[in-house]
Amino acid sequence: MRELPRLVSIGVVRSPLRSRVDAPRQGSEGAPDARIFLEPSYADALRGICAGDEMLVLTWLHEADRDVLEVHPRDDPSRPLTGVFATRSSDRPNPIGLHRVTVRGIDGLELSVGPLEAIDGTPVVDLKPVLRPQP
Amino acid sequence: MRELPRLVSIGVVRSPLRSRVDAPRQGSEGAPDARIFLEPSYADALRGICAGDEMLVLTWLHEADRDVLEVHPRDDPSRPLTGVFATRSSDRPNPIGLHRVTVRGIDGLELSVGPLEAIDGTPVVDLKPVLRPQP
Repeated sequence: MRELPRLVSIGVVRSPLRSRVDAPRQGSEGAPDARIFLEPSYADALRGICAGDEMLVLTWLHEADRDVLEVHPRDDPSRPLTGVFATRSSDRPNPIGLHRVTVRGIDGLELSVGPLEAIDGTPVVDLKPVLRPQP
Repeated sequence: MRELPRLVSIGVVRSPLRSRVDAPRQGSEGAPDARIFLEPSYADALRGICAGDEMLVLTWLHEADRDVLEVHPRDDPSRPLTGVFATRSSDRPNPIGLHRVTVRGIDGLELSVGPLEAIDGTPVVDLKPVLRPQP
């Protein structure tokens, strides 16, 4: 298995969601707004982001099990075992979370975004603008 | 700066695109089809993926410069310097590529997908289904 370079944390999620049990499966399923605190060394990389922008937040799902290759979708045992690459399970070999959000506001190194289903303390690894018409 | 665990390569892109100079900036801008060869140890994680599926391919853009924080969008010097998090520049702290593709076919550990602007030899780190109505 070929190992790649390490990711770095560019920031952290601060959210009222404290555990995976509390979190909806997708932002569109009732997730709250959250804040992202950026590491000061990346401040210049935010230039041009504005309230109202549609963004993709990429996170490192630090509580995920990287050894899982198949799951019952939505933890429903009546659904057949499915490869994790055919699902949005957070358990997967590289547990990168992909979250589409709206920027509610930006104040220095603090972004307010939502809805976001990532739990409090989740490391953020990238931010990207949504491309039109496709992500 | 907080370092996170290493990514692992789950597969590799095989493409007629041999260098960044040849590659379009987005798949929708005339990129060719490509193949993804999955590492055998992840075969079970493909179960349920079918020809015709809309997928997101996450790659590690191994030729990117991780120290770049601002760019002129589309390398156009007449456009103002913009933070990389407000652009789709491949130069960024964590150069994770996000590519929306259609699965053209699947044969064992080999997926045919397209369009894909990633160059030959790019490591693949994740595959996710497109969520409807949002990514």
